[in-house]
Amino acid sequence: MERLFPVILAGGVGERFWPCSRASRPKQLLPLLSSKTLLMETIGRAAELAPEKNIIIVTRRSLVSEIKKELKGKACKIIGEPAGRNTAPAIAASASWVLKKNPEGIMIVLSSDHRINPVKNFIKNVRDAVSTAQSGYLVVFGIKPSRPDIGYGYIHQGAKMKHAYKVKQFCEKPDQKTAKKFVKSENHLWNSGMFVWKASVIMEEFRHQMPSVYKLAESLEKSWNTKHEQQAIDSFYRKVVSESIDYGIMEGASKTAVVQATFAWDDVGSWEALWRIRKADTRGNVTRGRTISVNNTNSLLYADGGLVVASGLNDIVVVQSNNATLVMPRTQLPDIKKLIALVKKEKDLIKYLD
Amino acid sequence: MERLFPVILAGGVGERFWPCSRASRPKQLLPLLSSKTLLMETIGRAAELAPEKNIIIVTRRSLVSEIKKELKGKACKIIGEPAGRNTAPAIAASASWVLKKNPEGIMIVLSSDHRINPVKNFIKNVRDAVSTAQSGYLVVFGIKPSRPDIGYGYIHQGAKMKHAYKVKQFCEKPDQKTAKKFVKSENHLWNSGMFVWKASVIMEEFRHQMPSVYKLAESLEKSWNTKHEQQAIDSFYRKVVSESIDYGIMEGASKTAVVQATFAWDDVGSWEALWRIRKADTRGNVTRGRTISVNNTNSLLYADGGLVVASGLNDIVVVQSNNATLVMPRTQLPDIKKLIALVKKEKDLIKYLD
Repeated sequence: MERLFPVILAGGVGERFWPCSRASRPKQLLPLLSSKTLLMETIGRAAELAPEKNIIIVTRRSLVSEIKKELKGKACKIIGEPAGRNTAPAIAASASWVLKKNPEGIMIVLSSDHRINPVKNFIKNVRDAVSTAQSGYLVVFGIKPSRPDIGYGYIHQGAKMKHAYKVKQFCEKPDQKTAKKFVKSENHLWNSGMFVWKASVIMEEFRHQMPSVYKLAESLEKSWNTKHEQQAIDSFYRKVVSESIDYGIMEGASKTAVVQATFAWDDVGSWEALWRIRKADTRGNVTRGRTISVNNTNSLLYADGGLVVASGLNDIVVVQSNNATLVMPRTQLPDIKKLIALVKKEKDLIKYLD
Repeated sequence: MERLFPVILAGGVGERFWPCSRASRPKQLLPLLSSKTLLMETIGRAAELAPEKNIIIVTRRSLVSEIKKELKGKACKIIGEPAGRNTAPAIAASASWVLKKNPEGIMIVLSSDHRINPVKNFIKNVRDAVSTAQSGYLVVFGIKPSRPDIGYGYIHQGAKMKHAYKVKQFCEKPDQKTAKKFVKSENHLWNSGMFVWKASVIMEEFRHQMPSVYKLAESLEKSWNTKHEQQAIDSFYRKVVSESIDYGIMEGASKTAVVQATFAWDDVGSWEALWRIRKADTRGNVTRGRTISVNNTNSLLYADGGLVVASGLNDIVVVQSNNATLVMPRTQLPDIKKLIALVKKEKDLIKYLD
């Protein structure tokens, strides 16, 4: 649809996928689900909603040339952020671009690195969200929780509307006890971080709730697709505050709605996700790339370019990529950032993060 | 000494050190003990016994250029074998080279990949062996066994001589029960595979025990250091039988003696050797190269060129080299060749062995 503008947020690193993910090749540029990168899978879905020229990719400036290569001539708009400022500024900048193209434009805000399946359910849910957004709602996709995960924000679902539910309350990442209560309640959903709204409506929200961001975004509009664009973006990011759209806008907005996803969703958060999204063998092992696996159980063997030979391992994650190898127990994956912090501390190891 | 000719046997692969050891960079060309390769450590010891021009290195022809690079202009003689024929032909060819240089020459046959320490004890043992060899003996270095290892041949030690003992019997690799008996007996030594003898004496033994090898070696003599040398070596290896010096000569020789080593000796047979020859930390871990180790015990982390990050491992061997990574329990190291056999079976993986 000409009026739909998918906005793909592709600024993260996905550090938990080290050593495969690097600053210069973050999670969204890895082919974790198929032979395509997560970003290209996302663009594929977006292209079923709208023409390529309506797709906006917001990413770090240092990734722009790599992403252009990936796009192979696709006419998507890329906004290269000179500095990360969380989701609110990225969305405000995108909204101003959309408004210039089409004052009636509707934004479909997507993450670049989620797994969504089947696509036809996703498309249908987007249609529901779009028709809700038409009446001025900020619509979020909610995911039925499959476990009391404390890594997500939750949405307390309220009264039924035609194609969605009203949002009673946005709940920040809970503690374990609260998460269990939420799951038991059956009226709490995970906040997927994917949104649908009219560009004009979200801009109006910025004007009320984040007026400084609104002003900066408004002044950006005249520079889009001119020779001053890059300079204007730099100026915007130099001045804008860093804030999430959830905290900056959603929690304070009055007309918010939630569409419950009928697709399977995974935010591919860590190596643990591979057991959910790829088929393990009968002994619970997941392998990727060129591997030789003998007598292993519940282990991940991931060879990104080279060869991994492993035997006799139980519950062990082995990942080799670009001359760096990670070996750790699967149960300790939640602590992977502590290990990466140790790599960061060593000056001569920076090359293994870049 | 001008009369001493160290002969360094450097033809093996040391497959048990995969993925560090490759056909093109075998164990003897790895710096497993120090910053020097095992071969250069061996040449260093040989150079304390004899001038560089007396040192002979017998190796695979495909390794000659690599070894020449290592030698950095040292005047050692390299014999490049077009095909491996075990130790007897390599020694016969070397003997013929020595005899041409000095009919009174004494050969010190050494392995290229053993650990010997301290060198001054080794030098003293060689002197003892040389004076025994002067009286026409074939002298072998025996190692006091520290465990009932079934991986070595044993030597039953007989009557005392001035600087050595007579050999009562060479015993092939025993079963576990016999090995225990040998160790308990206190008169059995490991056969180190290192020998000392007069070139003329070993040639005479070839004439009696392996006449075909003798004839081929004799006809080789006139070609050494002529433009026909390479052709003559090719012809020798095309025709000669494959046999070990132990089985082909030592077991059938009458005048054999053994010098008991007073140096610490290790044949650096597998990754397990690293716990013997390198200092483990207080939790029993051995690390080499650029590694980050957190909460591991009794594990080996070996990064050959890249980075290995490991945590929470017990009794695990992790070796990364040239884009191949091996991860396996330390206790299963004796089975490493079975794993490598699986790599050999896959055509597209040959590059990880070459």
